[in-house]
Amino acid sequence: MATYILRISCPDEKGLIYRITQILYQRQLNIVGNDEFVDAQRRYFFMRTEFAGTCQPEELRAQLQGALPAARIELGRPRRREVVVLATSESHCLGDLLLRHADGELQASIRAVVSNRPDLESLARRFELPFHCVPSEGMGRQDHEAALLGVIGGYAPEYLVLAKYMRILTPAFVGRFPHRIINIHHSFLPAFAGASPYRQAFARGVKIIGATAHFVDEQLDQGPIIAQSVIPVDHTHSAGDMAQAGRDVEKVVLARALKLVFEDRVFVSGNRTIIFD
Amino acid sequence: MATYILRISCPDEKGLIYRITQILYQRQLNIVGNDEFVDAQRRYFFMRTEFAGTCQPEELRAQLQGALPAARIELGRPRRREVVVLATSESHCLGDLLLRHADGELQASIRAVVSNRPDLESLARRFELPFHCVPSEGMGRQDHEAALLGVIGGYAPEYLVLAKYMRILTPAFVGRFPHRIINIHHSFLPAFAGASPYRQAFARGVKIIGATAHFVDEQLDQGPIIAQSVIPVDHTHSAGDMAQAGRDVEKVVLARALKLVFEDRVFVSGNRTIIFD
Amino acid sequence: MATYILRISCPDEKGLIYRITQILYQRQLNIVGNDEFVDAQRRYFFMRTEFAGTCQPEELRAQLQGALPAARIELGRPRRREVVVLATSESHCLGDLLLRHADGELQASIRAVVSNRPDLESLARRFELPFHCVPSEGMGRQDHEAALLGVIGGYAPEYLVLAKYMRILTPAFVGRFPHRIINIHHSFLPAFAGASPYRQAFARGVKIIGATAHFVDEQLDQGPIIAQSVIPVDHTHSAGDMAQAGRDVEKVVLARALKLVFEDRVFVSGNRTIIFD
Amino acid sequence: MATYILRISCPDEKGLIYRITQILYQRQLNIVGNDEFVDAQRRYFFMRTEFAGTCQPEELRAQLQGALPAARIELGRPRRREVVVLATSESHCLGDLLLRHADGELQASIRAVVSNRPDLESLARRFELPFHCVPSEGMGRQDHEAALLGVIGGYAPEYLVLAKYMRILTPAFVGRFPHRIINIHHSFLPAFAGASPYRQAFARGVKIIGATAHFVDEQLDQGPIIAQSVIPVDHTHSAGDMAQAGRDVEKVVLARALKLVFEDRVFVSGNRTIIFD
Repeated sequence: MATYILRISCPDEKGLIYRITQILYQRQLNIVGNDEFVDAQRRYFFMRTEFAGTCQPEELRAQLQGALPAARIELGRPRRREVVVLATSESHCLGDLLLRHADGELQASIRAVVSNRPDLESLARRFELPFHCVPSEGMGRQDHEAALLGVIGGYAPEYLVLAKYMRILTPAFVGRFPHRIINIHHSFLPAFAGASPYRQAFARGVKIIGATAHFVDEQLDQGPIIAQSVIPVDHTHSAGDMAQAGRDVEKVVLARALKLVFEDRVFVSGNRTIIFD
Repeated sequence: MATYILRISCPDEKGLIYRITQILYQRQLNIVGNDEFVDAQRRYFFMRTEFAGTCQPEELRAQLQGALPAARIELGRPRRREVVVLATSESHCLGDLLLRHADGELQASIRAVVSNRPDLESLARRFELPFHCVPSEGMGRQDHEAALLGVIGGYAPEYLVLAKYMRILTPAFVGRFPHRIINIHHSFLPAFAGASPYRQAFARGVKIIGATAHFVDEQLDQGPIIAQSVIPVDHTHSAGDMAQAGRDVEKVVLARALKLVFEDRVFVSGNRTIIFD
Repeated sequence: MATYILRISCPDEKGLIYRITQILYQRQLNIVGNDEFVDAQRRYFFMRTEFAGTCQPEELRAQLQGALPAARIELGRPRRREVVVLATSESHCLGDLLLRHADGELQASIRAVVSNRPDLESLARRFELPFHCVPSEGMGRQDHEAALLGVIGGYAPEYLVLAKYMRILTPAFVGRFPHRIINIHHSFLPAFAGASPYRQAFARGVKIIGATAHFVDEQLDQGPIIAQSVIPVDHTHSAGDMAQAGRDVEKVVLARALKLVFEDRVFVSGNRTIIFD
Repeated sequence: MATYILRISCPDEKGLIYRITQILYQRQLNIVGNDEFVDAQRRYFFMRTEFAGTCQPEELRAQLQGALPAARIELGRPRRREVVVLATSESHCLGDLLLRHADGELQASIRAVVSNRPDLESLARRFELPFHCVPSEGMGRQDHEAALLGVIGGYAPEYLVLAKYMRILTPAFVGRFPHRIINIHHSFLPAFAGASPYRQAFARGVKIIGATAHFVDEQLDQGPIIAQSVIPVDHTHSAGDMAQAGRDVEKVVLARALKLVFEDRVFVSGNRTIIFD
């Protein structure tokens, strides 16, 4: 028997779970996992259901949509997502993703690695993946992004993963992949603006280095947060040691965020995520 | 409008969520939180629902029981649990509970502190709580437990909290409070049997000290685990420092476990817990 | 045989450890613990030595100062510090300190609790400590601090502990206790400026709540960091739940920072701390 | 100017630091980092010094040995260790090591990967490393180890890293690499003996999965612990999910342990480690 994942989000009202599960029950589908959450502030309802059974997904989807006209409904088999990874020159996140990919652990199919620099080509080649260098030197931002899109478009990816891609993307670019671009960056307590954050963190003597994985947002540098973690440091860590600690936590947090997203466990509600893990 | 918590557990079958939410919907009750889980190995279904509305709880309970004859159904308003705390002579867990209790943070009403030793009387008195010393010297285990039960019985507590109560309870005693006794103890990687575990942990040079909160089980020294956490240590920690680190993690883990239990978030499935947090 | 703690900091140069340990050896003092660190950026040397033996501390101090004219030298027996705690109305940090104090765990003697509000009086009284309310209503900041100093001065404390004291202290006040005021505050990834930080953290959907204990600095809102920790949260946490999680981590981090400071393990180097733990 | 690492361990007595630093000072060597620790129970002294300067290491070593006849003295430039990695069929630890190795992050030179199974050959080949399969089928343990030693011996490694090598090594084998074999294994609270530990951990409903990196000991299954860490799990994790969580923490803990050992930060004292990090 096949397994399906059903995701529904809509304005909250009475009877939503009842109406949804009624339809599943009438079709003799067996719910094996179910999570709901109501964002009380926004009065919005989120539900993720895993069910098993025989099912015409398009027909079921239509019936659910008929019952819940205001809802966003996604229904499908669990599947590996088509992904393009963007990176610049640091290898720790890309390497970790490629290892997990090679082990079949990623719930994604990495189609290609794209970079604005040539450094990571050998790493991508070790794992027999296409590598495209799209240098930005001497190009305006718009032209560079057009070139990027030219390369990326050929793979028609569902998600872009920014695995330490160090250039800012324009709202126009981001707008083509709404909540489909996932980024990882270091985070500090307190936060440091400006250049050389690790040097600032060192000068301030922080005791913790963090990392945040988030969706990239059109308006904001930082969109909804998917996962965060930290690693302890102390005065014996140089700025370089802190950067190394940061790399160790970044790769773990990015992998965790991708797992959550690719398993369809993440909803976006305003600027927050609802995560059913 | 009142809020209620509904807890249902029963053998898994198709349509459970549908049948339950149908009844709630017919009564125009508004689900504000819902969690389900199926223990696939035991084919057992667990559901915790928070709903708001006007409701005759006994009548609703009966209707649900009629629809699900095999289910265990609990329905009630969120309420402070009546609790008796047992402790011996260490103050860290008891003190933390008394502070949280005084702050109204505990979701419980501590009726009394009972001990086999007199040491903690002054601490209980600081917080204006009855303290009963039931010494065990010169008594058989059965007689001592009878004396304990005499004192405890007067308070008719729903839960017993063992906040570093250092005597073993007999199955007969535990059997009177099935999944109603919560204990905290230190945990190590690797585990150490026998006396002076901190001295053993020191000799072995462990880098982590842990704590486990669990239900006390008739058969087993350790019943279903509710919460666990750890704290890092290193070679500069003496056995005494490790014990201090252990105390710091024990009190946090016990408070966390009590919060989960008293908010009706914990189900027991075989020797595991299902926790909707 | 008595134990002493020797703390030395000075510009780095060759032979420092040799010259210091030579003096200790000539006096047949037995080093039982020794830590050094050179802040490479500032070329500054820090050393903390625990030694046992018979010793005229003032004479030894003078000899060391003669050998290291540029050094700051502290020498003394481990001792409980005289402390005044300032708090406003939240009880979690104060309560935790009072429990540890009552257990003799704090390496400090709390002389009094001072507040700008009356709320915490009953808590202080439970532990038989003097409580002083110095309200700030209708007073200028300078007058209020003068009144505070009047109360505090009577206790001649070595350290002030801000256990959720919610008023900003002027540089003039802070200047009277250089690196002698320890504060605890919540910390977020990312940081949130302005009012209601927990509401902002909630709206941003953070997955981690942190706490930072630090020395209070004349110039800065935040001086050198002593200890930091975090606690995970998720979308099911309301802003209030996040605040509760924040309280749980704050009290642990403050207690840890005080232990480090009162055991003479913390040096300040520029805006960083060097911590020998 | 060259940097050296000096490691000294010997029975504790007065004046050790003085006598050691005197010799360094007379040679105008500049101490840039220094750590000492006295294992009070065993009355044993440990010291690790990083110094910079011009130095005839063999002559200096001899002078130090003359001054401290009972001491074990190691002196040398920081250097990459020659390493052979043993693994069986799980790729997560080996892959992480190979990535770090390729990034020059490991402070080691991996000479070869040796396995009792063929599965990991392609992974080793991706990183252009020799792979040797030494199958154990149909061989006695002694013969298999002789074959292993034949392959390993050709590389004359300083350390063997067991990156999920799933066969037990005999004391005779281990005795050839005293405190030179580093192993990683999962750890649980409580510990589980026997087969299928993840299935047992699942059945017991543990909330934490841990990993321990340790030296392999002649006598014991588990020698001195180098690093430990944990990762939280809950009831939604299947035994397989717990194993995945275990893999994520194992690879991080093994990498951390190797960094500590290869940077000469780890001493063994009885069955404990002293770690200067």
